[in-house]
Amino acid sequence: MTDAAVRSPKPSTSKRTPAGGAPVAPHTAEEASEPRIDRDAVTDLLLGTWAETRREAREMVKDPAFWRVEGMPMPEHRERVLAQLRLLVENGASGRAYPVEYGGKNNNGANLAGFQEVVLADPSLQIKSGVQWGLFGSAIQQLGTKKHHDAWLRDVMTLDLPGAFAMTETGHGSDVAAIGTTATYDPETEEFVIHTPFRGAWKDYLGNAALHGKAATVFAQLITGGVNYGVHCFFVPLRDDEGNFLPGIGGEDDGVKGGLNGIDNGRLHFDHVRVPRFNMLDRYGQVAADGTYTSEIDSPGRRFFTMLGALVQGRVSLDGAATTGTALALHIATTYANQRRQFDSGAGTDEVVLLDYGKHQRRLLPLIAQNYAQFFAHDELLRKFDGVFSGEHDTPQEREDLETLAAALKPLSTWNALSTIQECREACGGAGFLAENRLVGLHQDLDVYVTFEGDNNVLLQLVGKRLLSDYAKQFKGADAAKLARFAVGQTAGKVFHGAGLRQLGQAVADFGSTARSVELGLRADQQHELLAGRVEQMVADVAAALRPASKLDAAEAAALFNAHQAELIEAARAHGELLQWEAFSDGVNAVQDEGTKRVLTWLRDLFGLHLIEKHLAWHLINGRLSTQRAASVSRYIDRLCLRLRPHAQDLVDAYGFAPEHVRAPIASGAEQARQDEARAYYDALAASGDAPVSEKSLKKKK
Amino acid sequence: MTDAAVRSPKPSTSKRTPAGGAPVAPHTAEEASEPRIDRDAVTDLLLGTWAETRREAREMVKDPAFWRVEGMPMPEHRERVLAQLRLLVENGASGRAYPVEYGGKNNNGANLAGFQEVVLADPSLQIKSGVQWGLFGSAIQQLGTKKHHDAWLRDVMTLDLPGAFAMTETGHGSDVAAIGTTATYDPETEEFVIHTPFRGAWKDYLGNAALHGKAATVFAQLITGGVNYGVHCFFVPLRDDEGNFLPGIGGEDDGVKGGLNGIDNGRLHFDHVRVPRFNMLDRYGQVAADGTYTSEIDSPGRRFFTMLGALVQGRVSLDGAATTGTALALHIATTYANQRRQFDSGAGTDEVVLLDYGKHQRRLLPLIAQNYAQFFAHDELLRKFDGVFSGEHDTPQEREDLETLAAALKPLSTWNALSTIQECREACGGAGFLAENRLVGLHQDLDVYVTFEGDNNVLLQLVGKRLLSDYAKQFKGADAAKLARFAVGQTAGKVFHGAGLRQLGQAVADFGSTARSVELGLRADQQHELLAGRVEQMVADVAAALRPASKLDAAEAAALFNAHQAELIEAARAHGELLQWEAFSDGVNAVQDEGTKRVLTWLRDLFGLHLIEKHLAWHLINGRLSTQRAASVSRYIDRLCLRLRPHAQDLVDAYGFAPEHVRAPIASGAEQARQDEARAYYDALAASGDAPVSEKSLKKKK
Repeated sequence: MTDAAVRSPKPSTSKRTPAGGAPVAPHTAEEASEPRIDRDAVTDLLLGTWAETRREAREMVKDPAFWRVEGMPMPEHRERVLAQLRLLVENGASGRAYPVEYGGKNNNGANLAGFQEVVLADPSLQIKSGVQWGLFGSAIQQLGTKKHHDAWLRDVMTLDLPGAFAMTETGHGSDVAAIGTTATYDPETEEFVIHTPFRGAWKDYLGNAALHGKAATVFAQLITGGVNYGVHCFFVPLRDDEGNFLPGIGGEDDGVKGGLNGIDNGRLHFDHVRVPRFNMLDRYGQVAADGTYTSEIDSPGRRFFTMLGALVQGRVSLDGAATTGTALALHIATTYANQRRQFDSGAGTDEVVLLDYGKHQRRLLPLIAQNYAQFFAHDELLRKFDGVFSGEHDTPQEREDLETLAAALKPLSTWNALSTIQECREACGGAGFLAENRLVGLHQDLDVYVTFEGDNNVLLQLVGKRLLSDYAKQFKGADAAKLARFAVGQTAGKVFHGAGLRQLGQAVADFGSTARSVELGLRADQQHELLAGRVEQMVADVAAALRPASKLDAAEAAALFNAHQAELIEAARAHGELLQWEAFSDGVNAVQDEGTKRVLTWLRDLFGLHLIEKHLAWHLINGRLSTQRAASVSRYIDRLCLRLRPHAQDLVDAYGFAPEHVRAPIASGAEQARQDEARAYYDALAASGDAPVSEKSLKKKK
Repeated sequence: MTDAAVRSPKPSTSKRTPAGGAPVAPHTAEEASEPRIDRDAVTDLLLGTWAETRREAREMVKDPAFWRVEGMPMPEHRERVLAQLRLLVENGASGRAYPVEYGGKNNNGANLAGFQEVVLADPSLQIKSGVQWGLFGSAIQQLGTKKHHDAWLRDVMTLDLPGAFAMTETGHGSDVAAIGTTATYDPETEEFVIHTPFRGAWKDYLGNAALHGKAATVFAQLITGGVNYGVHCFFVPLRDDEGNFLPGIGGEDDGVKGGLNGIDNGRLHFDHVRVPRFNMLDRYGQVAADGTYTSEIDSPGRRFFTMLGALVQGRVSLDGAATTGTALALHIATTYANQRRQFDSGAGTDEVVLLDYGKHQRRLLPLIAQNYAQFFAHDELLRKFDGVFSGEHDTPQEREDLETLAAALKPLSTWNALSTIQECREACGGAGFLAENRLVGLHQDLDVYVTFEGDNNVLLQLVGKRLLSDYAKQFKGADAAKLARFAVGQTAGKVFHGAGLRQLGQAVADFGSTARSVELGLRADQQHELLAGRVEQMVADVAAALRPASKLDAAEAAALFNAHQAELIEAARAHGELLQWEAFSDGVNAVQDEGTKRVLTWLRDLFGLHLIEKHLAWHLINGRLSTQRAASVSRYIDRLCLRLRPHAQDLVDAYGFAPEHVRAPIASGAEQARQDEARAYYDALAASGDAPVSEKSLKKKK
């Protein structure tokens, strides 16, 4: 255990310039440390399109009133977060997305950007805000019409009307179309009767339902004139001013959860509760006084998905918040790893800084690269979201693309958040397990992100089906010759234009890899080719496997699909990874500063190679990499880690977090102070001549 | 989302017997469901050598007084667990390992087996018991001598003397040899002066330190006559009967942690605290009245590792507790997956049971296989532990083997626990996030198992070094020809005899794979060849890479080692996986009942193939698998999942948990009741003629 170390590299002034004058890839850590990133510029890059709003939000949450208090019992935590929501209102942070006439700013991108930063204060606050203004309020805004906006939006913004978003039921989560709650129109009284006919139809897991919600947007099967028109949304008052349930309404507290215990999740049930016809949020479907149903969207399926799609912002928001939460964990663990020492190297030197260990570099650096990729990909997603919801690019095609993009990115970023935070917690040892150092709390709070607002596997399956249908469109009426041509030549960018895949617009300058032949085969365009080729091939393979389905009966076809479900989900994951890689590359290409560009290019390469290594067996089996080249992937990653090691602190400092955002004692400099104190003690002891000699050295003398 | 399903297979009475009369591998789920396991017999198998003690412990913790109460604030939780420790004493469960003369049973294997089951009640209780009786008490027993046993062991057992195990410091965790606390002998007063000279030398993360500990076994650098004899252990009183710190002693509370909040972890510091010479636990090293140091073990290094090795039981115990905790999570998630339905298959049938989805089978079944492997491997470890500590097989070689085995298995089982519990939690969706369903609590509590009692990566590095040194021993004085012969022919079993590798004693009957050529290449002996060959090759590769080290200076040699640190850790992991696979195979081979043997053989195959798939790129790059055979691995896993699907419930029922151990509402049958109620509602509605027609069906009629 005591002979494992390299020393932290020292800055060098040597410069290698080859005969031709072109830059040569540095091969040693000393050389790699020469270029430096422009930290402030990288912070701007990561904060993205709505950097100003993000900075405002970060400034706001420097106030300790917004901070999570570790170990606070659930009841107090819930009240604290409710009070924090009021603080958000006071700070004008509650309504950036709402129409100007109700006090909002009509700025959808900025709104989500601002809320995502709140995760730094307390994820419970971010999610409870999301319930109030992103789900409950958005349902009114997106699914309701002007009369509903006039009636409720102002009170939603000010929190005078706290509400729950009552979609999920105990018996139905991802399959919203099959919920059991009914809203039956009664033309006699011009009312809807809201009813949960069995236990499985109870609304469940709803924030604001256990305590604070005065009303709810309730999703129910709309039944009028003996016909079920599918799921629609209704505004249903829940509690009186004293907080008591209104007649016919009951509920339960979901109690303690794995995290997010500042939110009062609960269950609701309705026993023939009557609400006026007015309360149906009727933008996409209307019921006349006599019970006649009308809708602009004739297809029940398309209408359902249009309504759900109007609520996509939850997924967009989770993608961003998970990315920021992951960054916080990486900042903490990397800062600690740069100060903490453990074991001497056996070379008679000081104990070794954790990040100088090869394994520790391998644990953290690829995760920083992955997190950077998520930042760039998220900004693209947020811009697409803003384009659609501002009305600037609001077409059905754009909406569908947005939904697919959100469904591809949210699973990856939320899963990455959990695995990265866990790795960070383990990399900090026992200190990482203390709540004060925040890593365990982040993991607990972000845990549910992977299954809410769409279970990650279900979302990826949606993406997979979109990829399959884009693929199939190419072959409408195609002959065998065309199919064969496709199989050998077509590029992914041409096939999947709809879902965001594209060719790189230019040859990416790859400063890090001109000198070594092995790296020559793994430069940016080869990375892209491997990643894109994998998506293309996987989709084609699943499509080929499913081709017989059209000739089977429904049960056999379902069984066939089921046999390939896991592969389809894998294809969708590969697609999401490619999107992240492309976004990262686009971001790097736009950088002007040479040092920044060089280091970020290495980081992008590390991300690309990390993805290729993860799926190395696939690339080998499918003949995309020779065994020789495949073997070089891991070695190249090792070299990239060594190159990037001197930049690790810069890269996590570039997240731009202030001490008020980090708040982890182990990342505060306290560890450095302890190391310095210990070394000063031993130095003084040695100088004093009173230091005990070691038994070992005595034995050697004998 | 609505077309993904196969129906749950129905029992079939058909029997396939080929011409020759030998059994043929079933190819369909219907056939696979024919053999059934003998559930009770499998429970016996899993409970292992000390089944009786485990059953006693399980019976005891059926009492709700032992159960974790979700959401209980930390202060109450700590007092509750302390009271539970007293209950353990009353139940005679506290001292199975102690000598008979102090009221114990001198039964080391049974002792750990019993404690591991307590994880079902509350992991805080398991770990706080471990602190008191497994660490604090064991230090006195293993590192002290009869006078110490006489003085303290009885009070340790009865909890009249609750204590802390003060080894780890804020500044030194895994590197115990470098701790800063000193114990300086003063011959004038015949006392040791215990002192923490700087902040980093404070003892930290110690259970029982924040509140309940009256004394501690403190590890410190022993200094006498101006010589530092390295780390030794001292019994130091901490608090008076009112719970106040004694003079010179201070401390801090570690506060809220990521889990295990029923334990009062804290920090201790000592300001020249004097304890009598008597208090040095002096089994392996003694200080005479005049300050002369003596020890039977001349080498300071060997003495240090002997003392640490005496405390190996912590690692053994965590391996078992992690395995049992993982089983509980799998029982909960699998039971739910067998009752919960979501989405109809598009084939006009009922909604589909989760476990009938291909992806869901892929998520859970390999984890059940892995958990079974852990049970078998743990029983081997526990028998080895008992052999050494009972004195029956107590040789230095056996001790070293035990330590290596524990260091190889504990990392795998504790990491597997976290990833499995997390997968289970996600597989249960929102319900999995509720504390009442226990998965989040299990993850939180078991989180720290991966970094305490030896950080997992540090332990694997130890194993790696042992593998390297075993490997090197083969070549002492060997010539080039011998080296070459080795490279082509030698089997792992012959090389690594010390560390537990062996050849399978017999050809394993592989009932599941006689019929298909692809499977013929992936039967038990090929699985073993691939897994063992990988360990051998990886160790040889690292050894070859490190060979130049002997010619380098210390710093360069350290850098070279560091460059291969991650590979060495991977090699050790591969070794641990092989040991698990071998233990599973040995267990299966001993089964007599044919149905049980067949199903468990499939499960063992699934574990083997799961490992091979995980490292598929390695097998391809190193020419161990052709691309064609590699491609078949995943398909074979799919088939094994389909075969095992009808046995999933049996396999998790065979863990033998009673409702008092499970306690998760989603695994209680409540979900089945909800499903039944919902279907009864819809059936009655349909029968009544009042059911609304769907808009879709109306549109079709038009």
